[in-house]
Amino acid sequence: MPAWEAYIRRVEPYVPGEQPKRRDIVKLNTNENPYPPSPLAEEALARLSADTMRLYPDPTASELVDAIAAAHGVKPSQVFPGVGSDDVIAMAFLTFFNSKKPILFPDISYSFYSVWAELYRIPYECPALDAEFRIVPEDYMRESGGIIFPNPNAPTSLYMPLAEVERIVAANPDVIVMVDEAYVDFVDAEGGAGSAPAGPAPVSALSLLDRYENLLVIRTFSKSRSMAGMRIGYAVGSESLIRALNDVKYSFNSYTLNRDAIAAGAAAMSDGQYFLDTRRKILATRARACGEFRALGFDFPEPSGNFLFVRHKERHAAEIFAALKERGIYVRYFAKPRIDEYLRVTVGTDGQMDTLFTALREILG
Amino acid sequence: MPAWEAYIRRVEPYVPGEQPKRRDIVKLNTNENPYPPSPLAEEALARLSADTMRLYPDPTASELVDAIAAAHGVKPSQVFPGVGSDDVIAMAFLTFFNSKKPILFPDISYSFYSVWAELYRIPYECPALDAEFRIVPEDYMRESGGIIFPNPNAPTSLYMPLAEVERIVAANPDVIVMVDEAYVDFVDAEGGAGSAPAGPAPVSALSLLDRYENLLVIRTFSKSRSMAGMRIGYAVGSESLIRALNDVKYSFNSYTLNRDAIAAGAAAMSDGQYFLDTRRKILATRARACGEFRALGFDFPEPSGNFLFVRHKERHAAEIFAALKERGIYVRYFAKPRIDEYLRVTVGTDGQMDTLFTALREILG
Repeated sequence: MPAWEAYIRRVEPYVPGEQPKRRDIVKLNTNENPYPPSPLAEEALARLSADTMRLYPDPTASELVDAIAAAHGVKPSQVFPGVGSDDVIAMAFLTFFNSKKPILFPDISYSFYSVWAELYRIPYECPALDAEFRIVPEDYMRESGGIIFPNPNAPTSLYMPLAEVERIVAANPDVIVMVDEAYVDFVDAEGGAGSAPAGPAPVSALSLLDRYENLLVIRTFSKSRSMAGMRIGYAVGSESLIRALNDVKYSFNSYTLNRDAIAAGAAAMSDGQYFLDTRRKILATRARACGEFRALGFDFPEPSGNFLFVRHKERHAAEIFAALKERGIYVRYFAKPRIDEYLRVTVGTDGQMDTLFTALREILG
Repeated sequence: MPAWEAYIRRVEPYVPGEQPKRRDIVKLNTNENPYPPSPLAEEALARLSADTMRLYPDPTASELVDAIAAAHGVKPSQVFPGVGSDDVIAMAFLTFFNSKKPILFPDISYSFYSVWAELYRIPYECPALDAEFRIVPEDYMRESGGIIFPNPNAPTSLYMPLAEVERIVAANPDVIVMVDEAYVDFVDAEGGAGSAPAGPAPVSALSLLDRYENLLVIRTFSKSRSMAGMRIGYAVGSESLIRALNDVKYSFNSYTLNRDAIAAGAAAMSDGQYFLDTRRKILATRARACGEFRALGFDFPEPSGNFLFVRHKERHAAEIFAALKERGIYVRYFAKPRIDEYLRVTVGTDGQMDTLFTALREILG
């Protein structure tokens, strides 16, 4: 063994969901949006001059940052963009989780959190979700090096009411609390409308930013904006947190988002109506899917993402997973404690879901 | 001061060259290529279906990796792609520079090396270039945690003969030696043709890969491939080094290159003739620029990149820099010890260089 091998950083590589190159499959395994992005995104790409490819992109990605800030009603200096929310969260771990105390995140959650913690040698502890897969806020009210959790959580699809999120943020003024809202645009807010005279009650932690300087909200273009292929994510927070993130980012790679991502992302973000229309279609399909899954003998936590986390009352998840794959239908199965009886199923188009349910009836019947 | 501020990672932010948004300037400050990329790149982008924007890109970027491997005559398993060579080198620092011994790089060199070392808390030492700005190979023949240097070096534009590079690699079997070849495609290899019966003598450390498992060669699409705006870089090395890089990359962000970068990069890499034509034009303009600079009273190290590192015999670099900027001509000035009398000037088109020399005659005359 050469001496240098001793100095290679040992990591536990993350295994992403399969990305089969065949086009004839029904792909419900990585929570992509079944609808294309806003046509404005494609138009923005078509407008790019070939000559700009030779030039470095704007390192501040200001066109994109301004569009995000406008959409959320915050200042551009409160927005930090990156190469997907994975890039943003990894940068946030490196920037903010530098105490010796363990950071906290749920035992069942986005599996990348432990990977980044290992990569950067950040100690961590994972409070267990309760028997209904809910995050227990009290578990996050103790000394720590920082906190991160997705809301809605993945792969459970469960949403934690904003009042609980606020309790966690308020109880931790000494550390950074990151709320990973990859799926928050799929929370069905209509139910809360009655209780708020001025419109639906807010569901996103963005509405808490005015009051908590230690809060960082993380978003992605990969789900509700239909742009997983362009790799765009962002964080929104207080100006001091965003400044710290930018300092680290500029010391890592000044130019991360390429010109295509900046142009297409800005255009997509500006198309609020398209976003609402697509969202409405997915929520309708999800509601229908809930009925179908129930009728087929599945149970599941109340879904608030663009996916369901389903368990059949009698048949093993691994067995259903394999039978679906044989039929060219890809869903996600995690062979992990507590969740190895579940399948995570992305909400596709109505047509894709019809194919899925037809196959399930065959497999289960 | 909130308690969390104590745990923010403190860094010395890198200051990139100015990226003015005005279009009417002569931009010779960030070593971009003055010619657009191969038309095949634009065609590849135009062929992308809008629908693929909603899907995650291929995490292995195999289309791009295969094109790079084919162009260099190596195996795809010897190629690691990233979001510009900055991303690749940062990932390589994190992966390979984990001993407690200081890594070594030249005192005058790409300024990001020290930034990444600080970011990852890697100790480093910087042997001084000699009086003619040459790297002294003997300085790199001692115990260290690893070695990195650009060849040609930046901002000096000086090329170190391959035999010297090999001496450094061979003397350091216990650590990883990274050769950052961002500018190697602009080395004028014709001069060496006579000495090698089978064609020009090789100038790139790629030709050493067969013999040294501890060698990592880093390249970028930002200079000779005219694609700074797409953010593509790569490393070529032994399969074991590339595997280690991939393990760390997958534990950081599975999907870094977006679909546009993969498609455009693969197409550009396949267009060998366009690459040679563009390179020839730049070398011709550089040769002419050498004569003009000399006639105007500048001296400079023999340039081997797409830029010159020039010093005027009488006038201060800072003064010339400011006078050029006033005229809308951007070059690069580093207010740093040993090089604060120099300007780094990108080789533009012949027309851009005419504008530059006309302005210089005014300023100096």
